[in-house]
Amino acid sequence: MPVNLSVPDRSRLLPVAGVTLGVAEAGVRYANRRDLLVMELAPGSTVAGVFTQNRFCAAPVVLCREHLAAGKGIRALVVNTGNANAGTGASGREHARLTCAALAEELGIAPEQVLPFSTGVILEPLPVERIIAGLPRRQPADWLDAAMAIMTTDTVPKAVSRQVVINGVKVSVTGMTKGSGMIHPNMATMLGFVATDAKVAQPVLQQMLAEVTEHSFNCVTVDGDTSTNDSFILMATGQAGMAEITDMDSGEARLLQAAIMEVAVELAQAMARDGEGATKFMSVVVEGGHNRSECKQIAFAIAHSPLVKTAFFASDPNLGRLLAAIGYAGVEDLDTSTLELYLNEVLVAAQGGRHPDYREEDGQRVMKESDITIRVCLHRGEARATVWTCDYSYDYVKINADYRS
Amino acid sequence: MPVNLSVPDRSRLLPVAGVTLGVAEAGVRYANRRDLLVMELAPGSTVAGVFTQNRFCAAPVVLCREHLAAGKGIRALVVNTGNANAGTGASGREHARLTCAALAEELGIAPEQVLPFSTGVILEPLPVERIIAGLPRRQPADWLDAAMAIMTTDTVPKAVSRQVVINGVKVSVTGMTKGSGMIHPNMATMLGFVATDAKVAQPVLQQMLAEVTEHSFNCVTVDGDTSTNDSFILMATGQAGMAEITDMDSGEARLLQAAIMEVAVELAQAMARDGEGATKFMSVVVEGGHNRSECKQIAFAIAHSPLVKTAFFASDPNLGRLLAAIGYAGVEDLDTSTLELYLNEVLVAAQGGRHPDYREEDGQRVMKESDITIRVCLHRGEARATVWTCDYSYDYVKINADYRS
Repeated sequence: MPVNLSVPDRSRLLPVAGVTLGVAEAGVRYANRRDLLVMELAPGSTVAGVFTQNRFCAAPVVLCREHLAAGKGIRALVVNTGNANAGTGASGREHARLTCAALAEELGIAPEQVLPFSTGVILEPLPVERIIAGLPRRQPADWLDAAMAIMTTDTVPKAVSRQVVINGVKVSVTGMTKGSGMIHPNMATMLGFVATDAKVAQPVLQQMLAEVTEHSFNCVTVDGDTSTNDSFILMATGQAGMAEITDMDSGEARLLQAAIMEVAVELAQAMARDGEGATKFMSVVVEGGHNRSECKQIAFAIAHSPLVKTAFFASDPNLGRLLAAIGYAGVEDLDTSTLELYLNEVLVAAQGGRHPDYREEDGQRVMKESDITIRVCLHRGEARATVWTCDYSYDYVKINADYRS
Repeated sequence: MPVNLSVPDRSRLLPVAGVTLGVAEAGVRYANRRDLLVMELAPGSTVAGVFTQNRFCAAPVVLCREHLAAGKGIRALVVNTGNANAGTGASGREHARLTCAALAEELGIAPEQVLPFSTGVILEPLPVERIIAGLPRRQPADWLDAAMAIMTTDTVPKAVSRQVVINGVKVSVTGMTKGSGMIHPNMATMLGFVATDAKVAQPVLQQMLAEVTEHSFNCVTVDGDTSTNDSFILMATGQAGMAEITDMDSGEARLLQAAIMEVAVELAQAMARDGEGATKFMSVVVEGGHNRSECKQIAFAIAHSPLVKTAFFASDPNLGRLLAAIGYAGVEDLDTSTLELYLNEVLVAAQGGRHPDYREEDGQRVMKESDITIRVCLHRGEARATVWTCDYSYDYVKINADYRS
């Protein structure tokens, strides 16, 4: 069961002018399920992408990088679930190329103007012929349909919209994501797509994306496993009727980026809320650090600890496990005698030990909630970082022991 | 259930001349259980130790480092279970000091000649008065009794002996360890003690210990959580009647070290075999690397992946998860097209994808075994590393959601 997360209200997901969505049942892995999504972009759209740093990156990730670098202007994205096309070597790349070529031919564009994405099982050949056969069968779709078509072990589709007024022009930002396991993005999440009808020069769009990623998708973890297929794509169609944004430091750019950030943060949190087997959603805030990097290091040590995650599942304030994780995070000159540990507003530890006013029943009360903030104050600088995660339950094991079988 | 590991045969655990063992029921956390161990060492013994690098290291670890540095000659070790005396600040250190002082007074030695060890729950005050009251109540014990007295979530005691003949003198090496959760030692395991009646100069003993640790306790992981209390102690009583070993490069030193290594490796493996909830024991071998460090990095990425560990629990050859872990291990220039992945003798992947001869039923057959070797051949150098771990089962979650409650 996802934690305080429900299916998005279809009527609140804003269409983005210049983005045409279509979904189909291609039968990649299962019959009778929509497993193929095509996103067509109006001419003149700009597109930016960040991708997994996994060395075993999937074939579609290789092609995405190539096609973005080619600079011909991206006009379509094609996404399949059921098979990751990762660990598939040279034939995997050929399959991704064939998929792009088939869609390009239909749309009358070049294959390099198509970005391919795959998600699902690793190390199995992509059934490319079924995907190509599915392409012409696609039906018009809205963002909720699209978000549903890219789900794998997700229990709810994840899509978010924001509207922002820039120089009197209403601009829409709508995004979707998928992923609830193998989630510890390093550059991006498993699959995330955000589109806007704002007009943005490509270099500015890429910079916006990098900054947004650092504070959204790169701050979430379910199990610490960085996927082979992580991709986060930002698209700007320019259909809203505004002047092009060409300067990252302009007020227009910052306004737009704020809206994109809100969408991306909510999507990133949604992945942890729907983390495999999740019963609790935890925000880990580390503040007062020398730099953001050490704050993130400590936050991820906590968020990755199976002992911390099982204690939260049990609502057991076995909070020494938090201190242990802080201690082994690898911040070498960390002074444990000056830091403080809070659970929501309850001060748990200070001066290297349990705070004298801390009462077990206060810890217990917070642990029983479903949204919990773990806060570590380092008192040695101004930097901070927030990371989102979920607990480990029996169902995490069940889902991952059963998946694929 | 531990994986292919049973209670050691009491008659095969060799006493070590110069080591006197005693255990007591101190009631640290539970009544009617032996939770206190004292090891007395003959005058002239040398002792070496390595300790956790966790910044939240426990009070007894702080004292161990101080007392070893004092150089007065260690004459006794005292170990309690039920409470880790970690995250206990200044009062925790005072409690550890009081424990040492009480034992020192009884034995007529200096407090700095005592090393204290604690294991159990973190962030709770040590009931030092119960420990001190328990000391005089201790009963003579052998190594099996001692190994049982230091257990926490362990399901079987872990102790191993070897005998080696050095220059015609029979030398005994006996060791014990405890630990089945919060196991990802960084310098040492939760608690490990190895004693020999060989005579070894202290600097040589320390060097032996460092080398042994790197290839034994630093190569095991259950859950990736580095404990606050990790300590591994090597003791040499000199009672066997041999000349002192003063040179690490001598044949005598290498003979003795080989025996100590065998004991330490078997103990380290025993911790993974008895890992919390374990149903499978996995050896992860990475070979053909530029250096040992990158081999270990990849081996630990595999051994820590919850997705890999749950797949092994399910006996599901979902082996793409292994490729993903290799890919995100952080070896930046890794060429995934030249490496090979084996499961026991089955070649699974090569040239960046599934090997053409690989058959699902071969993977399935290996996955059903209880002792499995995952082998990655990097083909870019001569270095290798081996890491031992276990799978993740429902019982891992159960044990860690229930522990403490």
